Amino acid sequence: MILTVTLNLALDVTYDVATLTRHATHRVQRVRQRAGGKGVNVSRVLASLGQETLATGLCGGPTGDLVRKDLHKAGLSHAFHTISGDTRRAVTVVDDDATVFNEPGPLVHPAEWSLFQAHFTRLARSASVVVFSGSLPPGLPDDAYATLIGLAGGAKTIVDTSGPALGAAVAAAPSLLKPNARELAETGLSPAGPLVVSRGGEGMRAMADGRCWEARPPEVLTGNPTGAGDAAAAALAVALRDGSPWEEALRDAVALSAAAVLTPVAGAVDHAAYRRFLSKVSVKEVPCPW
Amino acid sequence: MILTVTLNLALDVTYDVATLTRHATHRVQRVRQRAGGKGVNVSRVLASLGQETLATGLCGGPTGDLVRKDLHKAGLSHAFHTISGDTRRAVTVVDDDATVFNEPGPLVHPAEWSLFQAHFTRLARSASVVVFSGSLPPGLPDDAYATLIGLAGGAKTIVDTSGPALGAAVAAAPSLLKPNARELAETGLSPAGPLVVSRGGEGMRAMADGRCWEARPPEVLTGNPTGAGDAAAAALAVALRDGSPWEEALRDAVALSAAAVLTPVAGAVDHAAYRRFLSKVSVKEVPCPW
Repeated sequence: MILTVTLNLALDVTYDVATLTRHATHRVQRVRQRAGGKGVNVSRVLASLGQETLATGLCGGPTGDLVRKDLHKAGLSHAFHTISGDTRRAVTVVDDDATVFNEPGPLVHPAEWSLFQAHFTRLARSASVVVFSGSLPPGLPDDAYATLIGLAGGAKTIVDTSGPALGAAVAAAPSLLKPNARELAETGLSPAGPLVVSRGGEGMRAMADGRCWEARPPEVLTGNPTGAGDAAAAALAVALRDGSPWEEALRDAVALSAAAVLTPVAGAVDHAAYRRFLSKVSVKEVPCPW
Repeated sequence: MILTVTLNLALDVTYDVATLTRHATHRVQRVRQRAGGKGVNVSRVLASLGQETLATGLCGGPTGDLVRKDLHKAGLSHAFHTISGDTRRAVTVVDDDATVFNEPGPLVHPAEWSLFQAHFTRLARSASVVVFSGSLPPGLPDDAYATLIGLAGGAKTIVDTSGPALGAAVAAAPSLLKPNARELAETGLSPAGPLVVSRGGEGMRAMADGRCWEARPPEVLTGNPTGAGDAAAAALAVALRDGSPWEEALRDAVALSAAAVLTPVAGAVDHAAYRRFLSKVSVKEVPCPW
């Protein structure tokens, strides 16, 4: 089982408006709500690939109830730990493109964090790979992912986050770091790997065992890039579990990520495009470091 | 008791951001939530003036629960009728000014609307004045306010709305219509009164008994105009109940409305400013029609 961890879970809310105008009043034409958070999206992609997955993290309040209901409706296995604060919303206002407002998330109390560690330790025992995704809610220490990596037992670990949480995770030596290029640059760190860095439309680079690879997507894609990184994390989790060679893992991550761009919602992939892209992604070894 | 009716209740959510940029992703610095809806704001102002008031309307779902909790915390008497749909949110993004996103509201089923009419009829029996404020949620007929005016018994009635709901209300001959100038112009109607039209920073005009008055605010005010119309409705409700002369009613409405502009949230007024403004608002009779 691949366990995904979303500590700063979200209810993704989408508002359709005619045109967003700063300092104006808008009539929202349609409201859509969906369980969100990067780890949840990784689990969605894994489930759609037929992979066994379980989503965990912190969930609370009336918004948390809406997230749980939506996960249930989607048939996605989940075991979130309940906290007293209300799960945040991420509001996306869509006119001809997306404008996003990310709430900071609920304050997590130290006792809740301790209880989650115990909950996580139990779940990790059944996991072959654990994927840690996204930001940390207020109240959690920067080294929250580092702590959980220490509790993951024999499971392999992937970290996809940014800022101080990414910096602290590097020190805990997860099986794989998967930041995007900007997020990694912002930390000022140069981790020695294993590392897969996503570079938007230019594809991804990997560094592992003193070797480096670069993979480019099969074509220039236009669509919704929001869930592309989460699709890549899903592919890499499967590759880690199966012990695939890094070249193959990178090819798979780029193909699945590109197939995610073609779908309008994060957590979904265009499976026909994925199969087509697999044979078209070019991977080459490049000198280290980049 | 002054009964306020908010059929399209809202949870007012405020997001503080550094700068709103169209098609960018924003980190929300602070989230505030508060019971909203125009009738609720009228009740807030009335309660702060020491007037007996009860807020009713339609309320449902987890967002409705948050609204009820906030009303309870504010000590505001309320008797909302529960519906199956989820009460809407109104999201205001604040940088150096406000950008507003109004959700449409829950779909109200015909059976729910019938039950509300019975609920309203009972409450209206104890009311001297009923104030109908704001938009109608999906599912309600345009003549919803007209229907309720017919059920208000001996209570006087004030309608502050816009669009087709305003047009339909005119035909039901409420004791007073209180649209703003733009809302009235959009209906294309020329009601014969009684009518108080708010004109933003230029004050208000009244038409009643074949006579017309114009009132101007005491000074040019900068602040938050959101709750100004609701404060005016509160003043007019008290004036209607007490049978105050129209000149006095208009003076009071302009002074209270101006005092509302000076406070940062809708439903609050600066009471010291209100007392000061009362002697400074100029009211003069003008020829009819305007």
